[in-house]
Amino acid sequence: MAVQVAIDHELVERMIHDLARYGAWGETGVVRKVYTPEWAGAQQQVMRWAEEAGLHTWQDAVGNVWARLQGREDGPSIVTGSHIDSQAPGGRFDGALGVIAGLVALRTLREQFGTPRRTLELVSFCEEESSRFPATNFWGSRAVTGLIGPEEPETLRDYDGVTIADAMRAVGLDPGRIPQAARDDIEVFIELHVEQGPILEQQGLPIAVVTGFPGIRHYLVEVRGRADHAGAMPMDLRQDPMLAAAEMISAVIARAREIGRPAVTTVGRVLVQPNFPAIIPEKVSFTIDVRHPDSARLADLCAAHEQTLRTIASRHGRATSWQITTSHPPCSSDPELVRLLVEAAAEQGIPATTMPSGAVHDAQRMAHIARVAMVFVRSVGGRSHTPAEFTTTDDAVAGIRVLAAGLRRLAY
Amino acid sequence: MAVQVAIDHELVERMIHDLARYGAWGETGVVRKVYTPEWAGAQQQVMRWAEEAGLHTWQDAVGNVWARLQGREDGPSIVTGSHIDSQAPGGRFDGALGVIAGLVALRTLREQFGTPRRTLELVSFCEEESSRFPATNFWGSRAVTGLIGPEEPETLRDYDGVTIADAMRAVGLDPGRIPQAARDDIEVFIELHVEQGPILEQQGLPIAVVTGFPGIRHYLVEVRGRADHAGAMPMDLRQDPMLAAAEMISAVIARAREIGRPAVTTVGRVLVQPNFPAIIPEKVSFTIDVRHPDSARLADLCAAHEQTLRTIASRHGRATSWQITTSHPPCSSDPELVRLLVEAAAEQGIPATTMPSGAVHDAQRMAHIARVAMVFVRSVGGRSHTPAEFTTTDDAVAGIRVLAAGLRRLAY
Repeated sequence: MAVQVAIDHELVERMIHDLARYGAWGETGVVRKVYTPEWAGAQQQVMRWAEEAGLHTWQDAVGNVWARLQGREDGPSIVTGSHIDSQAPGGRFDGALGVIAGLVALRTLREQFGTPRRTLELVSFCEEESSRFPATNFWGSRAVTGLIGPEEPETLRDYDGVTIADAMRAVGLDPGRIPQAARDDIEVFIELHVEQGPILEQQGLPIAVVTGFPGIRHYLVEVRGRADHAGAMPMDLRQDPMLAAAEMISAVIARAREIGRPAVTTVGRVLVQPNFPAIIPEKVSFTIDVRHPDSARLADLCAAHEQTLRTIASRHGRATSWQITTSHPPCSSDPELVRLLVEAAAEQGIPATTMPSGAVHDAQRMAHIARVAMVFVRSVGGRSHTPAEFTTTDDAVAGIRVLAAGLRRLAY
Repeated sequence: MAVQVAIDHELVERMIHDLARYGAWGETGVVRKVYTPEWAGAQQQVMRWAEEAGLHTWQDAVGNVWARLQGREDGPSIVTGSHIDSQAPGGRFDGALGVIAGLVALRTLREQFGTPRRTLELVSFCEEESSRFPATNFWGSRAVTGLIGPEEPETLRDYDGVTIADAMRAVGLDPGRIPQAARDDIEVFIELHVEQGPILEQQGLPIAVVTGFPGIRHYLVEVRGRADHAGAMPMDLRQDPMLAAAEMISAVIARAREIGRPAVTTVGRVLVQPNFPAIIPEKVSFTIDVRHPDSARLADLCAAHEQTLRTIASRHGRATSWQITTSHPPCSSDPELVRLLVEAAAEQGIPATTMPSGAVHDAQRMAHIARVAMVFVRSVGGRSHTPAEFTTTDDAVAGIRVLAAGLRRLAY
């Protein structure tokens, strides 16, 4: 029984455009960090749209926005959604498209098929990117899954030193209430997201159903030396941390290149103290982002990187330390949900493949309390985490059709 | 005829302490960038001290402070002094000690020997460190030597984008009047400065007379790539500028280490865009500070560095460009002045050696219009361009005695 889901192309385009006004950066970018006024504006906009679509809305204790389409039967919910925050700057699709997709899917299902048997919900997670607080680690979905530690609100700080508790209070949220955001009545979570990589474009396909998620580890490495005058201190007497840090950075990136897919290693952030041309640095800090879908190989790669840090630090006699700021194991999608979404795509006549995700996603956190899967939509040029990120409305609509058709199979 | 110059140890110590209050940073540091309120306060303090010492004071069109001890004869002046601005953060001795030394020397000579035959002057240069405006290049002494280009005030910008013309207006100076700061009536310039390196300490000597100055070149290098998602973009498809930049940085530093003294190369500043852990950088920029006292060898070293940048950029296919933001040839002290200062040290019974400077100094700019030399004072641990910079008051007094004795020989 092939039931066509009809998605309003123009509505999707307008929502993408309108949501991108909150925190607009340049012509196509967005800076929407958690608990900022732009972020609050975007969450309010999502609530207004959901109410217009006839859904019951609320904001939970951590700032996630929810919208419910009540089913006829009792029982746990089937949830879709993604995150509303962005990189700084990021594009207008990462996270936001999944929120819009869920909204449009629920609105369309209600209009086209009426009240569902099972309760459907949309969630717009407050934070996923760690673009303001480097160690939030999926703040929104961790709150929903009850994984935020009691000490975190007062200890996590943004790049300007503000605690996340104070940032919450600034937008009227009480950090003491975070535990109330936890849910135990969600059976399924399906997230639509842009691919953020080039695989679908290379295969000429608009859609993939995601089979699993990489393990990820973030290191913050600190190489310490001694600040001295760039002219008066001879090379042989320097304690320059820059040479060792540069060797470490090139070594870890080069190793992941040699290993090749699906291993990746990125050094995206470097901070030099005091960072002036004529001063030998006192300290060079940098991040290492390591990912692999295989748990054992991730561990091997991380161990090799750590050994590289030790070897180079010791060769140069530079005191070096690191902390692991993020660490999540790989995880798999629910095989039944993957099959259901592949069938939904076929039903809608949309060419689709399956693939593992390179990025980490809220769905990985939600897997602690629910069966999860994801729908990926093609990214032009594979670009993401940049204002140059782009997905055509045709592809977005194709993804929403697959999502809606999947939700229909589950809830109607 | 060995005339002992008696310097007030306590006065020197008090002045070092009191001047360091302007822009105090932590317990021992100073942040005193040109044309800031802290800077203005320090220049006012120097003027007050000079007036208390019976000198005639004024501030010139660019913000340098001058103090004159009028001689009995007409003719060009004999000038001493250094700069009042600091690194960010720097120590309390770099520059400041030379200003205090000149002040104490002129005050002592006036008290001990009366009116000189030749006119003596103190100058407290407004800017030497480029710590606020990366391309000022000795703003104070370039104004005095008439070397500031007419377009510079409106084009040079600080790290926050403020033009130096606006920064001047903010402290009541008219950038249109800069040419009036030029002098053509200075015969001699002698600058006392901390060594900023470890050579005197290693030799167990408090004082050196400086025989010459290194050539220096500052590069600002930009390696461009493409911002992409740190998880979803496979290693083989990335255009990551970080790998190439890290290889360039380690290669240029390693080359100078191999060559050894007196060649130096420093990468003190790195800026990554957008600088987030999960984003492959769009661009990595860094500075290279290259110095050598031999003009031909400086050119060779710079050429080798440039070739390294080209080779690595081309191997990785990363668009790379650079600009030279500072370039000054090596220069020699006036041999007669060096001899005179060495004799002055011997006369005062102060052990002294001669050495080339590793750092660049205002004296190098002043060499365009005057005979120049410098007195170096021992730096504890060779530390400089850091709040940890320190020079004992005993060594400072020894240096001031040599300076004053030299000025006495020239002016009395």
